[in-house]
Amino acid sequence: MIERIAILGTGLLGTSVGLALRAAGFRGAIAGWNRSPEGAQAALAMGAIDSIAADALQAARQSQVVLLAVPIYSTLDFMEKLSGVLGRDHLVTDVGSTKAQISAAAARLFNTPGRAAFLPGHPMAGKERGGAALADAELFRGAVWLFTDDPAAQRTPHSAALVKDWRQWVAAMGSKSIDLEPARHDELVAWVSHLPQFVATALSALLEQEVGDAPELRDVGGRALREMTRLGASPYSMWRDIAYTNTEAVQAALHALEQRLAHLRENLRTPELRDEFEQANRFRRE
Amino acid sequence: MIERIAILGTGLLGTSVGLALRAAGFRGAIAGWNRSPEGAQAALAMGAIDSIAADALQAARQSQVVLLAVPIYSTLDFMEKLSGVLGRDHLVTDVGSTKAQISAAAARLFNTPGRAAFLPGHPMAGKERGGAALADAELFRGAVWLFTDDPAAQRTPHSAALVKDWRQWVAAMGSKSIDLEPARHDELVAWVSHLPQFVATALSALLEQEVGDAPELRDVGGRALREMTRLGASPYSMWRDIAYTNTEAVQAALHALEQRLAHLRENLRTPELRDEFEQANRFRRE
Repeated sequence: MIERIAILGTGLLGTSVGLALRAAGFRGAIAGWNRSPEGAQAALAMGAIDSIAADALQAARQSQVVLLAVPIYSTLDFMEKLSGVLGRDHLVTDVGSTKAQISAAAARLFNTPGRAAFLPGHPMAGKERGGAALADAELFRGAVWLFTDDPAAQRTPHSAALVKDWRQWVAAMGSKSIDLEPARHDELVAWVSHLPQFVATALSALLEQEVGDAPELRDVGGRALREMTRLGASPYSMWRDIAYTNTEAVQAALHALEQRLAHLRENLRTPELRDEFEQANRFRRE
Repeated sequence: MIERIAILGTGLLGTSVGLALRAAGFRGAIAGWNRSPEGAQAALAMGAIDSIAADALQAARQSQVVLLAVPIYSTLDFMEKLSGVLGRDHLVTDVGSTKAQISAAAARLFNTPGRAAFLPGHPMAGKERGGAALADAELFRGAVWLFTDDPAAQRTPHSAALVKDWRQWVAAMGSKSIDLEPARHDELVAWVSHLPQFVATALSALLEQEVGDAPELRDVGGRALREMTRLGASPYSMWRDIAYTNTEAVQAALHALEQRLAHLRENLRTPELRDEFEQANRFRRE
């Protein structure tokens, strides 16, 4: 069904999708566009795309499915532009980490008669460093791929079939799909994705201040410390748009953790500490 | 040099030391004692010890080196008892996670003329779950093994040679030794070991409250969430004594992180967020 895909943004996620599609048996054409030509060249060299597009909008028009794999505000910019140049038989989907603004833009710019279809998506996979060079065909294996599709979306039979086919490719890449309301999505990922990232950033920044000048002591923490600070390597450029587009939910999650840490700090020598460990143990039950 | 070792406490660490010594080529006798007979039986079955001692103090007297691998307050109890029954040619060492109280007890009960020698030790290795069944001969490979030895310790040539030999076995197990003052040790591990644990416990407990009733949503976080909450499985029984014997340093570290999280929360949309990410990136530079 899907024979021509355009991947706009060949960073870690876009390039990994190209590789994963090929590994899953996709034999159609994959055109790639990237803001910096180096990223597109790397994706081409790895076999994630089979042509480099000089013009993102033109590549989108020549494809059936357009995957937006750029930061959130760039996704919103592309949505404005693509809405005017794509038609009713195109499908656009994305990988953005927050979905309320993207879903609202989709309802406004797509999914109505005469417009292209838009399927908001969010694969829960990534690495602490970005770039095509780190792309991996197995990145989505065992991961959850969230969708916040609009039940009121008005689609042609053709674009509805593209949606169904894209969901099957997501499954073929090894991911399990879960559908959520956009607001519930953003609240959920504030807890299970954004909070862990910001905690790792704060912990890493604090430890850099406390022991950063003694490299031999940074190693003392061993595997536990490496795991708890791995995400500290994540660049601001990957998280700025998330902080801007999910501010309230992230603030609520951070505030709740601050209170939890204070409670623990005040109860290091009381039976409350046992209760905290037991509640934590329940989260990690197998 | 060392030909007879008694391991008192054949949990994860004690049993792993037995396995690691054997893997490193130790051919002497290793007697094991454990509070519960099942733990000693498991260590024996795995080849970590070659005999089970019914009486811990008697096993200690019949050995040259006694390794205390029990919780901190049990270590302090054993130190009181061993001080009276061991002589000047014995060496006692331990694996306790805090060292101020143990080092003070060592100065009071050991390391003086006529008494046994005591070398306070702390391998920076472990798992989020304990027990002999999870023991691993490779647990200490690449880890740091901290010592807080007393430079004023008065040792016989024999016990001094045992100290030197034990340090060589620690190296043979794959660990790098670092010597620290006891107070500096406890402050350092509050930052690089205890803080990450208590953060993982608080984060896991909070997430159990927020998404614990929706198992399918717990999986959404993927690898990043699994890493950030792995230590949430650590049992209270492993951490109670640490919380009691390093309270002030842990409180200071927790309070500093609370402030850091609040700062980040208040700056999700300001350039301060970039500064936090960049400082965190420096901690994870390679």
